[in-house]
Amino acid sequence: MQYAIGVDLGGTKTAAGVVSAAGEVLFPATIPTLNIAGSDAILDATAVLVSSLMGRARAEDLDVAGVGVGSAGVIDAARGVVVSATDAILGWAGTALTAGLAARLGLPPSSIQAVNDVHAHALGESWAGAAAGTASSLLVAFGTGVGGSLVLAGQPLLGHRFVGGHVGHFASPYAFDGGTPVPCVCGGSGHVESIASGPAVRETYLRLGGREEDAADTRAVFALAGAGETTAIRAIKLGASAAGQAVGGLANVLDPEVVVVTGGLADAGEPWWQPMEHALRAELLPALGGIPVLHAKLGNAAAMVGAGRLILGPAPHGS
Amino acid sequence: MQYAIGVDLGGTKTAAGVVSAAGEVLFPATIPTLNIAGSDAILDATAVLVSSLMGRARAEDLDVAGVGVGSAGVIDAARGVVVSATDAILGWAGTALTAGLAARLGLPPSSIQAVNDVHAHALGESWAGAAAGTASSLLVAFGTGVGGSLVLAGQPLLGHRFVGGHVGHFASPYAFDGGTPVPCVCGGSGHVESIASGPAVRETYLRLGGREEDAADTRAVFALAGAGETTAIRAIKLGASAAGQAVGGLANVLDPEVVVVTGGLADAGEPWWQPMEHALRAELLPALGGIPVLHAKLGNAAAMVGAGRLILGPAPHGS
Repeated sequence: MQYAIGVDLGGTKTAAGVVSAAGEVLFPATIPTLNIAGSDAILDATAVLVSSLMGRARAEDLDVAGVGVGSAGVIDAARGVVVSATDAILGWAGTALTAGLAARLGLPPSSIQAVNDVHAHALGESWAGAAAGTASSLLVAFGTGVGGSLVLAGQPLLGHRFVGGHVGHFASPYAFDGGTPVPCVCGGSGHVESIASGPAVRETYLRLGGREEDAADTRAVFALAGAGETTAIRAIKLGASAAGQAVGGLANVLDPEVVVVTGGLADAGEPWWQPMEHALRAELLPALGGIPVLHAKLGNAAAMVGAGRLILGPAPHGS
Repeated sequence: MQYAIGVDLGGTKTAAGVVSAAGEVLFPATIPTLNIAGSDAILDATAVLVSSLMGRARAEDLDVAGVGVGSAGVIDAARGVVVSATDAILGWAGTALTAGLAARLGLPPSSIQAVNDVHAHALGESWAGAAAGTASSLLVAFGTGVGGSLVLAGQPLLGHRFVGGHVGHFASPYAFDGGTPVPCVCGGSGHVESIASGPAVRETYLRLGGREEDAADTRAVFALAGAGETTAIRAIKLGASAAGQAVGGLANVLDPEVVVVTGGLADAGEPWWQPMEHALRAELLPALGGIPVLHAKLGNAAAMVGAGRLILGPAPHGS
């Protein structure tokens, strides 16, 4: 059996493990991402982590075919380069990710593959998680941001500029404050992400009259809702409805075999999931009425598993 | 050189021609679609049309490899069956389209392929029209309805249930009348199609206070706008802005190499195109800023050419 090192390189931490051809993760390990130290420091630390996992695999006589990376940012999968990234990782944009790791690990560049972490996440769920065995799946994650990926025949749709999957950046009728579209982190306004992300739920709570001192973060808004606070319940319902409506509309456009909804908000339980799924199903064309809407299955391991799949499955490519 | 018969079977007329491997159409011919006579009558008439074209091709010593059909309705490309259709063609739903033609023409069923006409249209433009030479293109047509197709590596994304491409059926912030979402032909409401289709432009004109007797159809609204009537200008601008915003949002999600905008409204010229493209570009993520937004090139021949490509290119498939 073949194995790969799967790396999930996020804004705050980097997780990695040895991924088997059956989609299992051996020897999982996590380090903080050195997100203000610059890209060389991040590549150094990641190479040390990968190297130690390769040593573990060698000790167990496991045949490691290569290294797959799911990374924050827009990743050019053909060149293995970070095209752009937010300030969550300073200096990440422009990094020669696969070449930098290959040089540090003494591996041929062709043995390392990288895609954006949401694509890796979707690929993991499609290969060995909630969407295993399907011909196509649309995964959408609602958390700090909103991102997604359509996986077709085992390949995430990366897009021509590797920008595909920005499912938080289309218009939502919910993303208005009075008559004014809510500003979006992308520089636009009125987008799904500006009303349906985790931070947006907190902002909606404040806009609806909730008090700043009651809502330190999104989690606090969910706690208030759990205690029956009606403004918090309304804010969550608004964000969840916007989320579901957006996913339902995308299902009409893309007609995937199944939909997987994930991320911190999806993990928050029924107060979010129930209005989300209700709005999603209300949006569907009759022909899509029976489409499965699934919870993700692999939890934090999804992107690591998908990253491993970049090596163990077909090579990723743009359009 | 190989040839195919390309058939564009629409709600009011059926066009067909001999399509060359270079994407040219020879001997184009058009008949009315017998849209109230039932599917047997339609298949009979279509088979006669195809048969006469095959005779023409034989007389010229052209080698015809098969018959491709782009048809109104949701078409199961794997089985060659009409899954569903509107009342524009009575009795069309359930028709065994490819088997019915094969039997009438005495051809093996495998030599006939069918997809929905918008997918055929997009395939035609992608192969031999505005998007020729691109790795991926998103075509969106704004006319009596709103439909589209993402063509990836020469294959339209048909979807798992062959419902993919229903790009008119996601939420639009423009599709509200006061605070109420505008009803959509699909049974839902607040969708792009309910504000951005041709008939919707006329309905918006009436909602904005335009008089029924001044606006017999969408064309009349454009004529009024051409004469400077401000309500007509507003209605067109609203529909065009909704159209552009929708296409821009889809570009963010799908990141195609180019976008092609077509249909009766796109053909109506600058009063529609200019606000459409303005809204489209306002919606784009910075990384997509340079995306080409193209007029279609093949006119009425697009679906016929794409239908021919079903035979001359890779076989179509769902997900």
